[in-house]
Amino acid sequence: MRIRIDLAYDGTDFHGWAMQPHLRSVQGELTAALHTVLRLPPETLRVVCAGRTDAGVHARGQVAHCDLPDGVDVEPERLARRVNGVLPPDVRVHRVAAAPDGFDARFAALWRRYAYRIADHPDVVDPLRRRYVLTHPRPLDLDAMNAAASHLVGLHDFAAFCKRREGATTIRTLLDLDWSRDADGVAVGRVRADAFCHSMVRALVGCLIAVGEGRRDPAWAGEILTAQQRDPAVVVVHAHGLTLEEVAYPADAELAARVEQTSAMRTAPEPETAG
Amino acid sequence: MRIRIDLAYDGTDFHGWAMQPHLRSVQGELTAALHTVLRLPPETLRVVCAGRTDAGVHARGQVAHCDLPDGVDVEPERLARRVNGVLPPDVRVHRVAAAPDGFDARFAALWRRYAYRIADHPDVVDPLRRRYVLTHPRPLDLDAMNAAASHLVGLHDFAAFCKRREGATTIRTLLDLDWSRDADGVAVGRVRADAFCHSMVRALVGCLIAVGEGRRDPAWAGEILTAQQRDPAVVVVHAHGLTLEEVAYPADAELAARVEQTSAMRTAPEPETAG
Repeated sequence: MRIRIDLAYDGTDFHGWAMQPHLRSVQGELTAALHTVLRLPPETLRVVCAGRTDAGVHARGQVAHCDLPDGVDVEPERLARRVNGVLPPDVRVHRVAAAPDGFDARFAALWRRYAYRIADHPDVVDPLRRRYVLTHPRPLDLDAMNAAASHLVGLHDFAAFCKRREGATTIRTLLDLDWSRDADGVAVGRVRADAFCHSMVRALVGCLIAVGEGRRDPAWAGEILTAQQRDPAVVVVHAHGLTLEEVAYPADAELAARVEQTSAMRTAPEPETAG
Repeated sequence: MRIRIDLAYDGTDFHGWAMQPHLRSVQGELTAALHTVLRLPPETLRVVCAGRTDAGVHARGQVAHCDLPDGVDVEPERLARRVNGVLPPDVRVHRVAAAPDGFDARFAALWRRYAYRIADHPDVVDPLRRRYVLTHPRPLDLDAMNAAASHLVGLHDFAAFCKRREGATTIRTLLDLDWSRDADGVAVGRVRADAFCHSMVRALVGCLIAVGEGRRDPAWAGEILTAQQRDPAVVVVHAHGLTLEEVAYPADAELAARVEQTSAMRTAPEPETAG
């Protein structure tokens, strides 16, 4: 049986999602908790997620799947509470459910949505939110940042904003990217794409901050994109302002078709990383 | 010159506002930072706040004042940045300004507003907010809690909800107390009073949780109030869900009158504590 796991985490004290030897990872903690609760021998389970977040990146709406071996008799709905009883407090499972036929947390996803949060005025710096809001010393012009973002939305080769990796495509569909202020006055950039390549969101935000500060024109964002080369003027901003907010899937009947379509599109052997 | 300081803090790692020997306090950190920045000998300054928060209680809208000795030549508006450069990251000063004539952070306050936050469903437990949101294992009926709160609002002797202290009045005006859900589904209780006595908000919340769980009727809150005795069935809830959100002052012309009125009302030699 395949299960779907919806979870959230504070990325501060994790070396990202992906399990690595001797480093604390979300995948590592979740996998260990599942083994403990289900009393399975080590390395029985493999947990696959929708968005492989980098070190320091948070998640409110991460989705993962995991195949339970035959013979494991468990009600998925009751697993969330049991797993939370074992997990450290910086990871919380919101829901566990039997996955519908054809579900794959990574390949069935239609889009991922991230948010990047910036307190650009001393008045809106909130010590309670300092783990997931970047403090920026100068005010940002969100209108200029939105004007710049309009040059980036669409189907493009985002090589200028991606860490290059052998054999991996950097073509993505950026569905939206816009900035607004939340109730506290914090600038929130919401960015949604079919998928993101490594450090793409943080490079996009770095580019837009240069515009928001008035150091560059909005059109500059389009020039960087067209150049398809990393530009040293584009800073990859700090991970702690970034949160994976939501992952969307098609209706159950369309899951298998979506997985077929997506797997064919990806040439890289590795799942994409984001952040 | 008297200055007004608006500040915020994450109360997790503080033993409350009030300075105590060998313990980390907000008053201690802020006082030390002001001494450092202004190059004053130790114990020159005394910082007075509007709401003396308990250990673990947070603040988004704390207000304090402090009298600078004659001869200190400083532009108050530039102090915030300098003090933040010295303060640890869990306290942030939002603004420093010359206080208007007659201003007193404690005695001139018209009211204090606190918020208590509870995640009462696994779906809304957010690891990023775990420092200031209580996790409660059972769902709460906010309508029942609001019905109970209606018995508490008004001018009453809140002895049933206060730690008794020799010579201190427990009569307060509870201006409002109501529960709603924020965008994430977290239950937020907003409570506003002219002033609070020690642990009053947390005892009120404990009383209302018993109602919200269905263990008690809404009318029970009124019975507790009328009894004017602490009831062992009223649990003082954990400090970490509580945040001082806002303190309000009258117009500048009315400050002196307000201070005169309030100081006369308070018989206790100590400032009230809250939380």
